[in-house]
Amino acid sequence: MGKTSAVAARSATVRLVDEQGASGKVRQIFDDIKKTKNLDHVPNFWRVLATSPAHLELIWGQLKALMHPEATGRTSKLDAKTREIIALAVSATNGCSYCVNSHTTALRKQGVDSETLGEVLAIVALFNGTNSLADGYQIEPDVLPPVE
Amino acid sequence: MGKTSAVAARSATVRLVDEQGASGKVRQIFDDIKKTKNLDHVPNFWRVLATSPAHLELIWGQLKALMHPEATGRTSKLDAKTREIIALAVSATNGCSYCVNSHTTALRKQGVDSETLGEVLAIVALFNGTNSLADGYQIEPDVLPPVE
Amino acid sequence: MGKTSAVAARSATVRLVDEQGASGKVRQIFDDIKKTKNLDHVPNFWRVLATSPAHLELIWGQLKALMHPEATGRTSKLDAKTREIIALAVSATNGCSYCVNSHTTALRKQGVDSETLGEVLAIVALFNGTNSLADGYQIEPDVLPPVE
Amino acid sequence: MGKTSAVAARSATVRLVDEQGASGKVRQIFDDIKKTKNLDHVPNFWRVLATSPAHLELIWGQLKALMHPEATGRTSKLDAKTREIIALAVSATNGCSYCVNSHTTALRKQGVDSETLGEVLAIVALFNGTNSLADGYQIEPDVLPPVE
Amino acid sequence: MGKTSAVAARSATVRLVDEQGASGKVRQIFDDIKKTKNLDHVPNFWRVLATSPAHLELIWGQLKALMHPEATGRTSKLDAKTREIIALAVSATNGCSYCVNSHTTALRKQGVDSETLGEVLAIVALFNGTNSLADGYQIEPDVLPPVE
Amino acid sequence: MGKTSAVAARSATVRLVDEQGASGKVRQIFDDIKKTKNLDHVPNFWRVLATSPAHLELIWGQLKALMHPEATGRTSKLDAKTREIIALAVSATNGCSYCVNSHTTALRKQGVDSETLGEVLAIVALFNGTNSLADGYQIEPDVLPPVE
Repeated sequence: MGKTSAVAARSATVRLVDEQGASGKVRQIFDDIKKTKNLDHVPNFWRVLATSPAHLELIWGQLKALMHPEATGRTSKLDAKTREIIALAVSATNGCSYCVNSHTTALRKQGVDSETLGEVLAIVALFNGTNSLADGYQIEPDVLPPVE
Repeated sequence: MGKTSAVAARSATVRLVDEQGASGKVRQIFDDIKKTKNLDHVPNFWRVLATSPAHLELIWGQLKALMHPEATGRTSKLDAKTREIIALAVSATNGCSYCVNSHTTALRKQGVDSETLGEVLAIVALFNGTNSLADGYQIEPDVLPPVE
Repeated sequence: MGKTSAVAARSATVRLVDEQGASGKVRQIFDDIKKTKNLDHVPNFWRVLATSPAHLELIWGQLKALMHPEATGRTSKLDAKTREIIALAVSATNGCSYCVNSHTTALRKQGVDSETLGEVLAIVALFNGTNSLADGYQIEPDVLPPVE
Repeated sequence: MGKTSAVAARSATVRLVDEQGASGKVRQIFDDIKKTKNLDHVPNFWRVLATSPAHLELIWGQLKALMHPEATGRTSKLDAKTREIIALAVSATNGCSYCVNSHTTALRKQGVDSETLGEVLAIVALFNGTNSLADGYQIEPDVLPPVE
Repeated sequence: MGKTSAVAARSATVRLVDEQGASGKVRQIFDDIKKTKNLDHVPNFWRVLATSPAHLELIWGQLKALMHPEATGRTSKLDAKTREIIALAVSATNGCSYCVNSHTTALRKQGVDSETLGEVLAIVALFNGTNSLADGYQIEPDVLPPVE
Repeated sequence: MGKTSAVAARSATVRLVDEQGASGKVRQIFDDIKKTKNLDHVPNFWRVLATSPAHLELIWGQLKALMHPEATGRTSKLDAKTREIIALAVSATNGCSYCVNSHTTALRKQGVDSETLGEVLAIVALFNGTNSLADGYQIEPDVLPPVE
């Protein structure tokens, strides 16, 4: 079973747009989000962006193209699990609470177990560490990709 | 007058340890690095860490276990390409020059082409963006992973 | 057994200094903060810094000079709204909860509406993304400012 | 004694796409970039992204909409100078070399002088500092925007 | 109107492992953590990592070696207080709530008072600021360590 | 084939102010910097900030108070080596090239050897890693400092 979410502590700096009241472009995008992501409600992230419809449209467009390529007629060289692993790696590095929860949920839905999650995050931790070492010593790059 | 460009490019804050002169624990670790990574020379990163042998040992131990699990008798739920993708995602997010070069090289060695590299980095960019949006609006998490 | 939820939501690692009990330098600075910012209470940020009065003084001095230049006899080339936009951009990028709330409040007080807030944060997101792309590809700068 | 400077300066992990050879979608986008930005050459950033045309298209689309709204029939509540100030604030915070150069150039083209540039960056520095203080003390937000 | 803050906020994306039920390697590591850190319970951080025992082992091994060197037969050139100051400086810079709480606690246990804590964090803030200035102006390094 | 190295190394986005030509407030501050830091030339960082004298003054004032307290009649609870360790820890975490060079130099001047430098940076790396783990798992803080 899920986790309680009875009251939010942390809460948005804007008032979330209600699904019920949405119309026009916002309604269209809300419906597209639910359809594309196979959800029965619109997540908070999109309800917040809906306070500025032009930007909701831009950002959903970008995320849909990259994370749901098949829904936009695009090809992708990565599978959905890898895309979500990248999302979690970036979000853990940046410490974004909303995003870590969201992408961990997505990975669980894809059957990722606790050992795999542990491995992903241990590697994220390793490279956050080695990044600071390489920068902390100002090491000159010598392992360079071939550029024909 | 214009800007001077007489400045040395980036170089390490310590003197890199030479392979030839290495002995004892440093020699052992240098050999292990080359063997494990199938290289004929020791990359700068490890030559720099070798200025403090105890820490070279700790960090190589960690990286070998996580990035070359088979060489340490460990199992892994991720393939090598996915591990390097995580490494690149973190390194691009943190802007670490040494590491971006190193992990891009590793991905090329695994046959990753420019469209795939573009896809990985576009997704990294997308989430660096959405992380700052979620934090910029202080959105309360509602997409939560199941915790039994 | 499940997870504990007995932990208080976020709260400071030090005890906030009460306005009523403040005296000496701390009292002076508290009064100056309220007067300069036109507030009837001292925000938590300053009550926390007051646990180390010397540092409260240094940091308030810096912030007053840069964010309330007219109160320190300085000129400024930016207007107050632009200064707060910069503050929000940095705070969203760094994911600082206190600061995002504080600067969003300041922008609302200046009449910034939700579309404008959305535009600011969408641009913040765009550049957090393109920064990671430029670093992720290690692109050599070619668009350089003139340096006479 | 000093340090060696025999190392190559920073350069991209992919081969920049030449303008002359470009065709199809890449050619179209290159032309649109030059036209929209009033340039006679395509900056390195876009030549690098062109190694993966689908992603060049997505990212240019996003940047054009947000930074050149008039060219896409959009309205904007911010002026061009403010948009570039946000870009520089984020880029300085993230330490992106390409981007800092690019956006400083854009600001200079808009007539921003050295004192104004100094003011922008001093405010960026101030908030990078106060962000770390607010987080370093885990201060509970009390200055909250009105949410009707 | 204000915002509610009545409920526990943040909670882990995995179910914390109970001490009572732990066995095998996890039990051994839990006991070692309590013994090394002189605690009567296992902190949440380690109970979470225990969801992936292989990674609990790797990370505890690294932290024990670096933060409790005497327990691993290592020498250290820094004292415990300095090690914890570094931990807090990094954690405040990255805005990690768990870690800021944990390392502030450790410093208090070592007798660090509020003025000292204020001084540490004021210096952390100063350099987060000057880092963004140095990067924001792309200043070429000229104060270089001697490299013999 | 390798990569071109025809690109200029990193250099400032403004023209460094010459010491010889400096007068008025800038001259005073330049002299104070050299005297306080016991240098015979003014480092690039300050020559760049001098392009906006008001901000040079603010930033030097802050740094002098925190890093050279004795020169401003202040007391300090930390020694100079610890202050520079904090500076390096933050700068390595943020990947600031100028600052890493500058603070490594300062530490070398204080007699810090390569093993100690390695220990400092290994601890910086460790916590950059554990920060991303704590955030990546959204672990609820339970090790809390006493707040009387």
